[in-house]
Amino acid sequence: MRGRLGARPWLGRRAAGHPAAGRRGAGLLLAGLLAMSGAARAEPVALDRWGSFHVGGREAVISGQPAREVTFTPGGVPAKVDPNGTYLMGGMYAQYMIPANPRGGFPLLMWHGGGLTGVTWETTPDGREGWQHFFLRRGWPVYVSDAVERGRAGWGMIPEQTGGTPVVLPMDNPWERFRIGDGPGSFARQSTNPGVLFPTDPESYRNFVRQNVPRFTTTDALTLEAYLALLDRVGPSVVMVHSQAGQFGWRAAQERPEKVKALVLVEPAAVGDPAKVAALKDIPILMIYGDYIATDARWPAIRGNGLRFAEAVRAAGGTVDWVDLPERGIRGNSHMIMMDRNSDEVAALVQDWLAAKGLWR
Amino acid sequence: MRGRLGARPWLGRRAAGHPAAGRRGAGLLLAGLLAMSGAARAEPVALDRWGSFHVGGREAVISGQPAREVTFTPGGVPAKVDPNGTYLMGGMYAQYMIPANPRGGFPLLMWHGGGLTGVTWETTPDGREGWQHFFLRRGWPVYVSDAVERGRAGWGMIPEQTGGTPVVLPMDNPWERFRIGDGPGSFARQSTNPGVLFPTDPESYRNFVRQNVPRFTTTDALTLEAYLALLDRVGPSVVMVHSQAGQFGWRAAQERPEKVKALVLVEPAAVGDPAKVAALKDIPILMIYGDYIATDARWPAIRGNGLRFAEAVRAAGGTVDWVDLPERGIRGNSHMIMMDRNSDEVAALVQDWLAAKGLWR
Repeated sequence: MRGRLGARPWLGRRAAGHPAAGRRGAGLLLAGLLAMSGAARAEPVALDRWGSFHVGGREAVISGQPAREVTFTPGGVPAKVDPNGTYLMGGMYAQYMIPANPRGGFPLLMWHGGGLTGVTWETTPDGREGWQHFFLRRGWPVYVSDAVERGRAGWGMIPEQTGGTPVVLPMDNPWERFRIGDGPGSFARQSTNPGVLFPTDPESYRNFVRQNVPRFTTTDALTLEAYLALLDRVGPSVVMVHSQAGQFGWRAAQERPEKVKALVLVEPAAVGDPAKVAALKDIPILMIYGDYIATDARWPAIRGNGLRFAEAVRAAGGTVDWVDLPERGIRGNSHMIMMDRNSDEVAALVQDWLAAKGLWR
Repeated sequence: MRGRLGARPWLGRRAAGHPAAGRRGAGLLLAGLLAMSGAARAEPVALDRWGSFHVGGREAVISGQPAREVTFTPGGVPAKVDPNGTYLMGGMYAQYMIPANPRGGFPLLMWHGGGLTGVTWETTPDGREGWQHFFLRRGWPVYVSDAVERGRAGWGMIPEQTGGTPVVLPMDNPWERFRIGDGPGSFARQSTNPGVLFPTDPESYRNFVRQNVPRFTTTDALTLEAYLALLDRVGPSVVMVHSQAGQFGWRAAQERPEKVKALVLVEPAAVGDPAKVAALKDIPILMIYGDYIATDARWPAIRGNGLRFAEAVRAAGGTVDWVDLPERGIRGNSHMIMMDRNSDEVAALVQDWLAAKGLWR
């Protein structure tokens, strides 16, 4: 299929100075030595500005409900809370960090996956720097957001409209569903996929579990709306998405093709609108998949959906670069590629691709 | 009462270079001119490092529940979710920004109030820089956290244990409860307390409402536990709290007096353990209250509780500096002092106090 195995000129290029600039083995060894010596600390980063905002959302009116008396704090002074009135719901949170010496051609928006928040990008479970750091250090203005109903976006401003019970996950679920462990029951066995690079020591894994947040499955329309509002506010951007945000990245690009200057999809869990593939034809697109997919219960089908959609985009005249990391000899990646021990190596691959597309100077 | 009206040597001192260094009128005028001219943009800030982590929390086991089949994404591949297993609950999120040239003697921990998140500190509703910026720019290593069950901390990892319906607020509630408006019905009238400095234009107020998140009233013990875990991880710190976090600041200082090097309480909604006031005797404490308290339904009692507690701390040999801003001629502050238009002026007062206590160099 076109693009999948073809020549990729950007593959031979590496941004100077990134931590994984060498071959993989040497890079990992070097990283290990640096970590041991305590010398891995990177240079300070100068921020021109940073901050956050909320964007998007709708008003909704509630009436006819009884008031409650709430003692917010034990020993505090009770307050009457009248739930009737106008609510704002469906807003979203974004935090931006703008480097003093920008090199990215556009802001880089980082959209997390389901049941998670922007924390996905700002640390790894074993405490290394996240992709937020990687790209900010290379001069990208970075916007890390919390999607509707999650994290600092807030949730359920209208309980009546959140629609059903959010999904809350026990510890074994991400281990087994994100291809860290080798299938059902692997958490109980503490068994991993062979050579998996996700940090599976107990403390790191607990750190990851603590990043998980409840997930509503009824807010996709609101979430897409909020992402469009984010694009409208920030303006033309590079959009990087993970997992659940795959659908939002695809669809936002279809709704605002002039504002998405490139689309980087890290294991997207779903695709865009098949009727609107032509809208994507002028957007450089990169899709990245990790390891252990063939032996997983769900990921062969999910990747297959992605591949068919990519082919439809290409048939409409678009450009999709498809990267199966194991085909590159990069093995061991779970679904949480930006948290795996080789996260900087994969980030460098993305960085090189963006540079090759002329989006970084 | 001792300390309330007495001499405060730190009052005469102002940190050089902060935006509100002049007299109040001149400071506000200058800020306005700078904002109009676009010249208000401050210098870039060099970060030595930044990132986030989760801390605290407990395990809990759920069993005997039926599994669900969840289609996480429309058109996606269904997954079986077995809710039985071990959960982590009650963890907390903290984001740190460490300046390259630190001047604060200790890290500064910023603990938000009820129904809010760390966003409280990182912007104002009208888009100015928050207190996070103010103190980071003056060289404080700043840790902004999301307390248990809010924001990026995640919530309800055990739905059975969150205990009851969280409080979700319609738009009129903060307007009327946080002393922005002049009492019940004031939101509908769009009526404010005279001269209030909270940004009440519709867009700014909506921005603030979007920062609100649901509030559980059953998680105080977990929250205190998590704050103690935060102190244990970060080490000796200056703790700055707002509103609901008043009780957590007081109680955390009582449990870890050696780790709280100063306690800054901005309109604390509750007090500490009356049986443990002696634990606070070696900690410099600053309490700050805004305007319009006398005419509010609840704040005279809340402030009265705070005053009695402060007197008990003093009687035990402690030092509490008590600041009623209107008594200083600083009028117009709502409950959200760090968001009011004079937020930098009040931050400067805190900064001067910290410097006077020898905590800044």
